[in-house]
Amino acid sequence: MHQLKNEYQALVERPLKLDLTRGKPSPEQLDLSRELLEDTEYMSGKIDARNYGHLEGLPEARELFAEYLGTPVDQTFVLGNSSLRVMHDIVVQSLLTPLPFEWRTWKEIRGAPSMLCPVPGYDRHHEICARYGLRMIPITMHADGPDMDEVRRFAAEPNVVGMWNTPKYSNPSGITYASHVCEEIASMQAASYFRIFWDLAYNAHHLTEEPDTLPDMLALCKEAENPDRTWVIGSTSKMTYASAGCAMVASSPDNMEWLRRSLSVQSIGPDKLNQLRHVRFFKDAAGIKAHMKRHREIVGPKFDLVDGILERDLVSLKQVHWTKPRGGYFLSLFVPGVAKEIVAFAGKAGVALTPAGAAYPYGHDRRNEHIRIAPSFAPLHNVRRAMEVLTLSVRLAYGM
Amino acid sequence: MHQLKNEYQALVERPLKLDLTRGKPSPEQLDLSRELLEDTEYMSGKIDARNYGHLEGLPEARELFAEYLGTPVDQTFVLGNSSLRVMHDIVVQSLLTPLPFEWRTWKEIRGAPSMLCPVPGYDRHHEICARYGLRMIPITMHADGPDMDEVRRFAAEPNVVGMWNTPKYSNPSGITYASHVCEEIASMQAASYFRIFWDLAYNAHHLTEEPDTLPDMLALCKEAENPDRTWVIGSTSKMTYASAGCAMVASSPDNMEWLRRSLSVQSIGPDKLNQLRHVRFFKDAAGIKAHMKRHREIVGPKFDLVDGILERDLVSLKQVHWTKPRGGYFLSLFVPGVAKEIVAFAGKAGVALTPAGAAYPYGHDRRNEHIRIAPSFAPLHNVRRAMEVLTLSVRLAYGM
Repeated sequence: MHQLKNEYQALVERPLKLDLTRGKPSPEQLDLSRELLEDTEYMSGKIDARNYGHLEGLPEARELFAEYLGTPVDQTFVLGNSSLRVMHDIVVQSLLTPLPFEWRTWKEIRGAPSMLCPVPGYDRHHEICARYGLRMIPITMHADGPDMDEVRRFAAEPNVVGMWNTPKYSNPSGITYASHVCEEIASMQAASYFRIFWDLAYNAHHLTEEPDTLPDMLALCKEAENPDRTWVIGSTSKMTYASAGCAMVASSPDNMEWLRRSLSVQSIGPDKLNQLRHVRFFKDAAGIKAHMKRHREIVGPKFDLVDGILERDLVSLKQVHWTKPRGGYFLSLFVPGVAKEIVAFAGKAGVALTPAGAAYPYGHDRRNEHIRIAPSFAPLHNVRRAMEVLTLSVRLAYGM
Repeated sequence: MHQLKNEYQALVERPLKLDLTRGKPSPEQLDLSRELLEDTEYMSGKIDARNYGHLEGLPEARELFAEYLGTPVDQTFVLGNSSLRVMHDIVVQSLLTPLPFEWRTWKEIRGAPSMLCPVPGYDRHHEICARYGLRMIPITMHADGPDMDEVRRFAAEPNVVGMWNTPKYSNPSGITYASHVCEEIASMQAASYFRIFWDLAYNAHHLTEEPDTLPDMLALCKEAENPDRTWVIGSTSKMTYASAGCAMVASSPDNMEWLRRSLSVQSIGPDKLNQLRHVRFFKDAAGIKAHMKRHREIVGPKFDLVDGILERDLVSLKQVHWTKPRGGYFLSLFVPGVAKEIVAFAGKAGVALTPAGAAYPYGHDRRNEHIRIAPSFAPLHNVRRAMEVLTLSVRLAYGM
């Protein structure tokens, strides 16, 4: 213990300046899309991509990204930067205008309109709820997805209007939902205005040779006679450029017509030049796959390193465990009772971690146990240094 | 009359396919910005424009476009495509969350929340109101701007929450507000949550050697002790690419902080690569000015042609008049009592005109007199052909 304290004291005196908070791609990853900046051709068939129009996206972009999402082309729109904005807009529109076949907006539903939030989850999903007064109901996450007993129980309530999900390589735990979980979500009892946000942010962001797969959620919902239940959402922000991506969204024909009308009030069309750049750059679904393999070569070693250091330094602490994602941008470290202390310790030593509790609605991690680790941005040697400070902080917090 | 009918009949039998409906830039205008597609440098000082962040826009873009709008840099944000989306978002946010120093949202204000709409006006401004149930109050437009007696009378009502304006080269009439009108708008009595939308869509889109100018609206409001009254809005959509522009917005420090918080919930930053392209392309305010002069060389002759044909064919019809814009994208033709008939006549002959009434709230042009003419997109010979059909239709409708 004395040695740990000395080690830590030395760090505090000369603090590092490292950051493992946000899932930003590294400069090396951004370099993979260099060619995007050199595209100069702006005609897409007879469409001048520089001018107004094509609210639903450029036909060739819709084709490519429908294949990417596994959704029907005519039920898939390709929009601008970013998927967060698309999800925000769908929530806002649902609050202000009735969804298809409804006579009330979400705001007009009796009781506090509420969203189910598997925890730990994506803080920006929660922030949307917090801003517009949508009550958040935390749902326990297991290794195969959200606890379906909890989900079923809450979803049956008429004031529960939706549920957030990053079902593949979940943010932050990296978990992928099992097929039976997806089937149950598609078929469970819920209000007609209940909507699943199926955020496929990491759809092709694999870290293994055998990628996780998900069933076709739109098809499952249709089969279960809940055709309008799910919004499928994706983005190229973590494939090409974080600041300059294309978002995509797919759902039932009725939902898409509702969305089209909502878009028509706020836009005369998305950035079709950027869509064209993306189509020319990726070429086809195989091009996306090959590109994402190059991302894996950069990101994969960072995840391996993080897991290796956690294993080496913390395996003897029986109360500590962490997830081993097969894809995505994050992993979860569980340190029951001391998450806040550890984040504070690491902070003093110059290692920024996402604030403890940030992955929970209202910032409330009742076991004070979760730390989100985002290894993508920092170079490998800084990931190593930051992780060593983190494991030192863990051992210090537990006094062992 | 018989000759007019024969002439018209011949057209109906072999209809043209011309369109003067929307203010789309022509391909020649889009070609002016060709270099935008070839930019490959993505660093802005130490900022990697490809990655997340900088919610308020890239510092160098904020500097350039603050100068363009005539607003303070630290009160100016540069966002993504497009200004319509920014205005829509401000309306939606005002409906859902209280503005600075307010305790109620616009939706919670007693009586029907209402917007003042100078008519004829921009149809997409009206559509935003229509979608969210904001009642629209039409305001008469004069040659120097909206009728200030009407504006003052309505603005004093507590349920009037805002007013739309395109104060320079107005859509569709091309009118520029006189200084005394701007001063009165800034200083008149209105609720604390009353907001002016100052849509400078055509800020540098001059058609003469001596550009119209507007006073500094933010300064006027501040002097009048209504610092939070005005949102100043601009866009490059009609300077570079209609589909891939940068929007900009400026207001008081308190409004901008409110907007920043609202943006932070829906975005991790705008497309900074596109901002960088624009900064590199324009270089400075003089670059914008030189660029807009090249636009004028393309658009100017079309406006001259339109005015020439109207003068030649309709000067003898005393009830007909039209505006002579010194900038912008549109002009207004007033044909009392027969606007609908004329649009229908022209349509049958293959010339698409914006539907009569489209420039009025609820499509209600009570004098059935207004036709919006958008000459920018069609090549000169098609503008000529379309205008000749239009003047033929006017004479036919009046039977003379």
